[in-house]
Amino acid sequence: MTRFRLTVEFDGRNFMGWQRQKHGATIQGSIEEAGASIAGQPTPVMAAGRTDAGVHGLAMTAHIDVAREFTPFRLMEALNARLKPRPIAILSCEEVDPEWHARFSCIGRRYLYRIINRRPPLTLEAGRAWHVIKPLDADAMDVAAKRLIGLHDFTTFRSVHCQSRSPVKTLDRLEVRRNGDEIEIIAAARSFLHHQVRSMVGCLVLVGQGQWTADDMTTALEACNRAALGFNAPPDGLYFTQAVY
Amino acid sequence: MTRFRLTVEFDGRNFMGWQRQKHGATIQGSIEEAGASIAGQPTPVMAAGRTDAGVHGLAMTAHIDVAREFTPFRLMEALNARLKPRPIAILSCEEVDPEWHARFSCIGRRYLYRIINRRPPLTLEAGRAWHVIKPLDADAMDVAAKRLIGLHDFTTFRSVHCQSRSPVKTLDRLEVRRNGDEIEIIAAARSFLHHQVRSMVGCLVLVGQGQWTADDMTTALEACNRAALGFNAPPDGLYFTQAVY
Repeated sequence: MTRFRLTVEFDGRNFMGWQRQKHGATIQGSIEEAGASIAGQPTPVMAAGRTDAGVHGLAMTAHIDVAREFTPFRLMEALNARLKPRPIAILSCEEVDPEWHARFSCIGRRYLYRIINRRPPLTLEAGRAWHVIKPLDADAMDVAAKRLIGLHDFTTFRSVHCQSRSPVKTLDRLEVRRNGDEIEIIAAARSFLHHQVRSMVGCLVLVGQGQWTADDMTTALEACNRAALGFNAPPDGLYFTQAVY
Repeated sequence: MTRFRLTVEFDGRNFMGWQRQKHGATIQGSIEEAGASIAGQPTPVMAAGRTDAGVHGLAMTAHIDVAREFTPFRLMEALNARLKPRPIAILSCEEVDPEWHARFSCIGRRYLYRIINRRPPLTLEAGRAWHVIKPLDADAMDVAAKRLIGLHDFTTFRSVHCQSRSPVKTLDRLEVRRNGDEIEIIAAARSFLHHQVRSMVGCLVLVGQGQWTADDMTTALEACNRAALGFNAPPDGLYFTQAVY
């Protein structure tokens, strides 16, 4: 059995999320089906993160265990050929130690959240960014974002379905910057709670619209209560961009 | 009758091109239908350029003639509301002199062509860029592009369906630059022949793959013969980005 590390790009609009499900297309399920059809036996796939339905991947890191002999290049080619026409692409493939694990060896995750802040509807960016009509003050959002950095109990920003053992996490980066109509939010941590990035972005948008102050962000954080959450940003704007090992 | 200048963004994948047709959705047809339903009578629309099926618009300039009284903001809002869910958005609207004409007053057109140059298939960029697998030398492409700049007979790069009176045009800019896997080509001229940008890009890719030299580009240009063309790049990567007045 050989373990290969994969870098995976996908358009999340077409899937019920990363994780394999009994009904409905998922990214993990698609790659495992492709792998099994190549190897003639199951090829389990694990990833650094489990993204929700509609969330995109620019460089998700995963591993796949394959019993048959393949060069990394041939495996990548065979997977990409089998994955068509689904919008999933294996960008790189390399052999790794069988002890190496895409999820458990990962020491850092990075996400990008894209907002298009304008009045007219989206065309080319529909489903690829969150459309926010009301003008946003990106500088105020960036100031409020800093209130969340560091070691905190992030219960306020945690989905009720979160399976993490502890709500205490260290947020390393949360940055907001504007480039024309587009606002980019970058989040980095060793790991995130389920819905944490989207929950933080939802509250940052309340700050950007002037409904919340930076102090309201601190109050929400300290409440350690999901009911204190502003709201969840939609999945459309969220991209998994990097796993660090 | 009041004339309004519009800036229009659209995802070309969903349309048979800009120009109204008897059968099939077009951008011009969609805006005219929306305008007529608002004004209760025909509202003719004209644009700086007529893009082909699959070609996108980031900022196409058009005008619309409306007999009913509207503020520019209300007209823009009403058009955007009527255009949903089609991927067309009116980004700006302003009243202009009835003599002003989106096509005939235009003194410059600018296009962007996007190539993603990598082996794995496209996911998020499918339909939004041309996927070229073979490695391209963008510097060689940029050198060859310079052979086309200036006043030339562009018959080689002209569609048989082109309605332009003369094949002689002045190409002001044709630049190729690489940014990671992406190659951007920027083209600017007072006006272009039908298929000219896509024909030039097709030949530039032959240069980038080492099949053509810069001298071959000059030979093709000087042939003034469509048969000397390398090939036409697909519409997916082409964006109308600016009209100058």
